[in-house]
Amino acid sequence: MILYCKIFSFVLGLVFLLKPITINAQDADSLFVSNIYKEVLSNNDMYQNLAYLCKNIGGRIAGSPQAALAVEWSKKVMESLGLDTVYKQAVMVRKWSPGEYKEAAWYYTPTQGKIDVEVCALGGSIGTEWKGIKAEVIEVKNFKELETLGTKSIQGRIVFLNRPMDPTLLNTFESYGGAVDQRFKGAEEAAKYGAVGVIVRSMTLSNDKFPHTGIMRYDEKIPKIPAIAISTKDADILSAENKKIPDLKFFFRTMCESAPDVKSHNVIGEIKGSVYPDQIITIGGHLDSWWLGEGAHDDGAGCVQTMEIARIFIKMGIKPKRTLRFVMFMDEEIAQRGGRGYVKYAKEKNEKHYAAIESDEGGLLPKGFSFDTTQAKIALWEPYKKYFTPYGIYEFTKGGSGVDIHYLKELDRKSVV
Amino acid sequence: MILYCKIFSFVLGLVFLLKPITINAQDADSLFVSNIYKEVLSNNDMYQNLAYLCKNIGGRIAGSPQAALAVEWSKKVMESLGLDTVYKQAVMVRKWSPGEYKEAAWYYTPTQGKIDVEVCALGGSIGTEWKGIKAEVIEVKNFKELETLGTKSIQGRIVFLNRPMDPTLLNTFESYGGAVDQRFKGAEEAAKYGAVGVIVRSMTLSNDKFPHTGIMRYDEKIPKIPAIAISTKDADILSAENKKIPDLKFFFRTMCESAPDVKSHNVIGEIKGSVYPDQIITIGGHLDSWWLGEGAHDDGAGCVQTMEIARIFIKMGIKPKRTLRFVMFMDEEIAQRGGRGYVKYAKEKNEKHYAAIESDEGGLLPKGFSFDTTQAKIALWEPYKKYFTPYGIYEFTKGGSGVDIHYLKELDRKSVV
Repeated sequence: MILYCKIFSFVLGLVFLLKPITINAQDADSLFVSNIYKEVLSNNDMYQNLAYLCKNIGGRIAGSPQAALAVEWSKKVMESLGLDTVYKQAVMVRKWSPGEYKEAAWYYTPTQGKIDVEVCALGGSIGTEWKGIKAEVIEVKNFKELETLGTKSIQGRIVFLNRPMDPTLLNTFESYGGAVDQRFKGAEEAAKYGAVGVIVRSMTLSNDKFPHTGIMRYDEKIPKIPAIAISTKDADILSAENKKIPDLKFFFRTMCESAPDVKSHNVIGEIKGSVYPDQIITIGGHLDSWWLGEGAHDDGAGCVQTMEIARIFIKMGIKPKRTLRFVMFMDEEIAQRGGRGYVKYAKEKNEKHYAAIESDEGGLLPKGFSFDTTQAKIALWEPYKKYFTPYGIYEFTKGGSGVDIHYLKELDRKSVV
Repeated sequence: MILYCKIFSFVLGLVFLLKPITINAQDADSLFVSNIYKEVLSNNDMYQNLAYLCKNIGGRIAGSPQAALAVEWSKKVMESLGLDTVYKQAVMVRKWSPGEYKEAAWYYTPTQGKIDVEVCALGGSIGTEWKGIKAEVIEVKNFKELETLGTKSIQGRIVFLNRPMDPTLLNTFESYGGAVDQRFKGAEEAAKYGAVGVIVRSMTLSNDKFPHTGIMRYDEKIPKIPAIAISTKDADILSAENKKIPDLKFFFRTMCESAPDVKSHNVIGEIKGSVYPDQIITIGGHLDSWWLGEGAHDDGAGCVQTMEIARIFIKMGIKPKRTLRFVMFMDEEIAQRGGRGYVKYAKEKNEKHYAAIESDEGGLLPKGFSFDTTQAKIALWEPYKKYFTPYGIYEFTKGGSGVDIHYLKELDRKSVV
């Protein structure tokens, strides 16, 4: 139910990118909206597609065999929809993997002996090789503390970045944004002061035993050190033990592998515009995911929602004036080569892009849309709101768009809604 | 995150049942609301309580050992909150169980041989005894069809009630309401025409392999026949096979047990009112659940939300003018003896009940409140809406209240918001 609601609002958003509505036509438009909604809610294909992507293909980090399977599978699904064209767009992706061997980590306490800890490599991290890293742990809450402690205290140690996400923010993406610097730049910042590794508290508001991965970056001018994530529960325990045992030594091993770039693909389907075929509206989600889960919310949902919009336009015979591009982006998580590549091609071909919409905040109950444009252009949305509110869609706010589509802002756009 | 949001709005609803707000005090009140919200979002106790209830106690049908454990556990949790009083309120509950042996069902097709089917007993159904029931299946979509077919076609057969929930309704409780007569009264209606058993399509919009139970009733004047639920996927398959094989014979065995009523309890905590201690506001959820799941959404969430409200009032030192009663109702699913008993006691003691609020629609993202009162009284809520909308709570509609608390309408209420 919930996913369908989201798909529905997503479709609706699209329809209003295309269709000028006059006051006279209000009843007809309400009926039109109601019919879209009935069609989406009555059809189960995209749930089944999501299940296939998650269960039969599973976690699909860019450059992996699973990601290649996802490319072929999504092309096949798109081909079954009756689009005007479906094709693959080649992009070179960074090939990084957590390696064949499961990460390992442990420490000892006088009262409990050896404590094994579930950890995971951060995306893009170097590995420790088989011998692993063993060093004293020093906990910090932010980079300022690192600076204050300085090389004298940090040198040779493992820095434990343990600032929790702020639970008091209703928008959990804000909480995430306020803590993710630890994961993204923690290794680089700690290495400046001679740290040998970093342990990062997982980016989640849950108090659980699951370590969460995510992307991290190195500064090429600073020595690279290995980085792992620890679950929130284990972070709390480690923090408490480290207070009791200031010279607590922590061991971890990660066997991450980096290889030269490999070819992968965005998968693209199109409905040609009937009036302005050269003006493009992009609708997308990203096909790749991390390896720890099955990539349902991040971002299988966005992919099947994109496919569902294509299905709806064709099933209901809606003829868009502009060309609709349905894009399964590759490699959002690691290096955004899909999003960047999509824009590179657009530049080469001198394409005109009218607007873009991406779903990548999870397939939960939809509340509205975030617009990455001017307030004046957001205000253009005002007359259309009445078609959304009966379905519980009430937020139309200025904010981010999507990681994959935001590279389109590099183009000189003809116009943007 | 999501559950907390709901708890939060639930708390907020309560606060506004208690606190008159003037325009002058708006800023102070907004701050007050913001502080409640921060406290709820920052605390994790109720998630842990929910996990304990679901994982350590599990499914807890009224009269079962698990339900008794849930009573003692919830009393202990409430006692830890610092309420003015916590006590158990004895109620006699119907003791029904699906029995010790797992339900079994199968049929044969010429091409596939024996097909085993996952089924479950409907709550309150008689069993088949070990020998089971084997008879031809006759599919109907509604009771009108049953009447048209009549005794000649139905006699000696198993009636298969296979009308799906309407997927086009945005409110899934409406879809449920439009199909649940099949489960609730299917056995009674089919038995009128001599059916020997009923198979009911599960009440869900999901297309999956899980049979869903739920309550059914018998008319004492009509012979009782056993009733089971079949998953939506298996219902579709059975329907297709039955079209190919009109004389398809279906076997099922359920070992349901009914015993005399047994004693169980509502669990009640109170904060005494500072001005009108004799006026009672009831806040509740139900402690019992079906046996097939762990009862997280139905209705562990409502129970821990109720506890969270108690925690917030005490932690933040909010002194209610009226007495707050936090109630873990027993036996919502089978015979509502907890809700009925609560009102029986209220009548005996001549209690004055001011208002009641129940959460029993699942612990998902909250959207608003449904009010079981007059439009005039709902309109009193108008000045308070502005305190909810910043948190995404926007629906204030006339509708149902909750199964447990709706019995309070039998009382002469002093007043209702």
